[in-house]
Amino acid sequence: MKNETVKIDYGHLEQFCRDVFLRLDLSEYDADSTAKVLVAADLRGIPSHGVGRLSRYVNGLKSGLMVPHAPFEIIRETPSSVVIDAHGAMGPPVSVKTMSMIIEKARKAGSAFGSVSNSNHFGIAGYYAMMALDENMIGICMTNTSLLGVPTFGRRAMFGTNPLAFAAPADKERAFVLDMSTTVVTRGKVEVYDRLGKELPKGWAVDKTGKSASDPGSLLNEMIERLGGGILPLGGEGEEFGGHKGYGLSIMIDVLCALLSGSPFGSEIWDMESSSVRVSHFFGALKIDAFRDPAAFRCDMDRMLEKLRTCEPAEGEERVYYAGLKEYEKEEEYSRNGIPLLKKTYDLLCSIGKEHGVNPPEAIE
Amino acid sequence: MKNETVKIDYGHLEQFCRDVFLRLDLSEYDADSTAKVLVAADLRGIPSHGVGRLSRYVNGLKSGLMVPHAPFEIIRETPSSVVIDAHGAMGPPVSVKTMSMIIEKARKAGSAFGSVSNSNHFGIAGYYAMMALDENMIGICMTNTSLLGVPTFGRRAMFGTNPLAFAAPADKERAFVLDMSTTVVTRGKVEVYDRLGKELPKGWAVDKTGKSASDPGSLLNEMIERLGGGILPLGGEGEEFGGHKGYGLSIMIDVLCALLSGSPFGSEIWDMESSSVRVSHFFGALKIDAFRDPAAFRCDMDRMLEKLRTCEPAEGEERVYYAGLKEYEKEEEYSRNGIPLLKKTYDLLCSIGKEHGVNPPEAIE
Repeated sequence: MKNETVKIDYGHLEQFCRDVFLRLDLSEYDADSTAKVLVAADLRGIPSHGVGRLSRYVNGLKSGLMVPHAPFEIIRETPSSVVIDAHGAMGPPVSVKTMSMIIEKARKAGSAFGSVSNSNHFGIAGYYAMMALDENMIGICMTNTSLLGVPTFGRRAMFGTNPLAFAAPADKERAFVLDMSTTVVTRGKVEVYDRLGKELPKGWAVDKTGKSASDPGSLLNEMIERLGGGILPLGGEGEEFGGHKGYGLSIMIDVLCALLSGSPFGSEIWDMESSSVRVSHFFGALKIDAFRDPAAFRCDMDRMLEKLRTCEPAEGEERVYYAGLKEYEKEEEYSRNGIPLLKKTYDLLCSIGKEHGVNPPEAIE
Repeated sequence: MKNETVKIDYGHLEQFCRDVFLRLDLSEYDADSTAKVLVAADLRGIPSHGVGRLSRYVNGLKSGLMVPHAPFEIIRETPSSVVIDAHGAMGPPVSVKTMSMIIEKARKAGSAFGSVSNSNHFGIAGYYAMMALDENMIGICMTNTSLLGVPTFGRRAMFGTNPLAFAAPADKERAFVLDMSTTVVTRGKVEVYDRLGKELPKGWAVDKTGKSASDPGSLLNEMIERLGGGILPLGGEGEEFGGHKGYGLSIMIDVLCALLSGSPFGSEIWDMESSSVRVSHFFGALKIDAFRDPAAFRCDMDRMLEKLRTCEPAEGEERVYYAGLKEYEKEEEYSRNGIPLLKKTYDLLCSIGKEHGVNPPEAIE
């Protein structure tokens, strides 16, 4: 069966990834942080960014696209800012390290920001924004990605899916955690439609003429051949539904990630075989106490989030959510009962384990 | 003719607004800053936020919804942050003052942020973000607004159109200035469709059942009667086109504006007769020098913006823009040749002038 799943304890899954990375001669810190970031995605119900990508990391490290033991070089530093050159390292360790620095800086300075250049895939942006939550801070994280998004009125990809994450703590409610790409969808969705032989909904993508694309197969082909076409920014085609707004957000994120760190941007970032390379990130933290008593803030957050969560659903809908709520519910369920991995993902892990002499995590059921 | 226009010199238009405010016994600073912010909207081709709103300000000041000579009270202040209680003042003066403080703070601290509570309509958010441009800083501005936006899967408005502005300087290119509401459209667009007797495009709004609204008249009525319905977040209905992302952005903005300053949020903000009241704002500035040589940053901005501006347009389209470009082109044209005001807007100004003993600005042609 295509969607058969295998349940795995998340601690075991983390341990497995960590062990594979250690066999690849990574440091404890690098192995541990990358394992945690990947498994966090599966735990929160975002398998597209989870351990299904382990082979990309393994291959990236072996091919040199991701540089093991790359220096973490501070290019510029002030009490409220830092710019890092990651020198081609894997994204997660350098991102955890940078966000930790930013949080320390914000503790004294009130707010702090950091840009990272020459990095790689870093998993879910939300992970780093959420690091601020227990510190009574608001966390921010962005990254540019390989080329995919077409500007309003254009026909060629000029920017990535450029996600934005924003996390703000509550008290009794789960935190507000927005983690979104700024394109309508990502390439993965188009690939799924291609496999299913379904037409793309109008408003997701344009072909090489810049007009609405309906055939996912030929679109993917045009993109691979660099003939033009790509995914539309949030808001869709033209300006009628606000596509220019999503386009603007994508560029804003490129400015903060790439331009502030002097990195390649937009059309300069091509997807390589095993991973996107030379992407750049942006991290930020705002100390709530610089504005207001954090306890009062958290209490108002509860009030707002509860109102949203309990507001009347549309006809035919069961629930209204707020950003992060679904993911927290998944996290609670999966950390109790195990993470349901697709069988084919599990098989892939087993073969990676075999190759590197690491026992795969045992299935719970 | 309905769309007949009258061209007015922007300096004369500013002077006229300033004089009206002075007759209403406002201070020089309040009169001058409000006149500048309103006219800046017309100059940039955003008449919905321009002098067409002068009567709202005049009526607001007279009715007490906008409080003249309200104290500008600093509630909390650190070297990188400030929280202001505007005590019901007009939006523009308190916003110019706060953004100026933020820029001064960022000069020393590297970055700084401020929230303002108990304010009113403040014109275009972009105005305040753009104040950072000449300082080699990136400017940020947000505001919540009166209730209008319906959460994904919901049926009742729970947040405003909550705009976000972001400005980053270039060198030879015009600056990148994103200034966007986080709903698909604003109420004004629905009102235009109502006047024209046109059906609403699917994906703009939902009715009181939470399902796609097509009749603008009955939607406006349902909203006024508080029966439910409202505008959809950027990305439209449900999750297929990313509506949950626009919803998340709107709430993010409410967190930064209202929650950080301890103000009313979302469903607590109702539109009053002459103006929305008790809205809150958020301002920020990032000093580029804290990250990178500003000249190198501006030069890379040129490179990026030129690439976007000159990339190949879609079939049937003439140009690709970047955020702010259209507005700068309008500004250049209108400051040379005069601002084309709708005749009915001009007539309104004349009658306000007559009532307050101020000569209306003369038409250029």
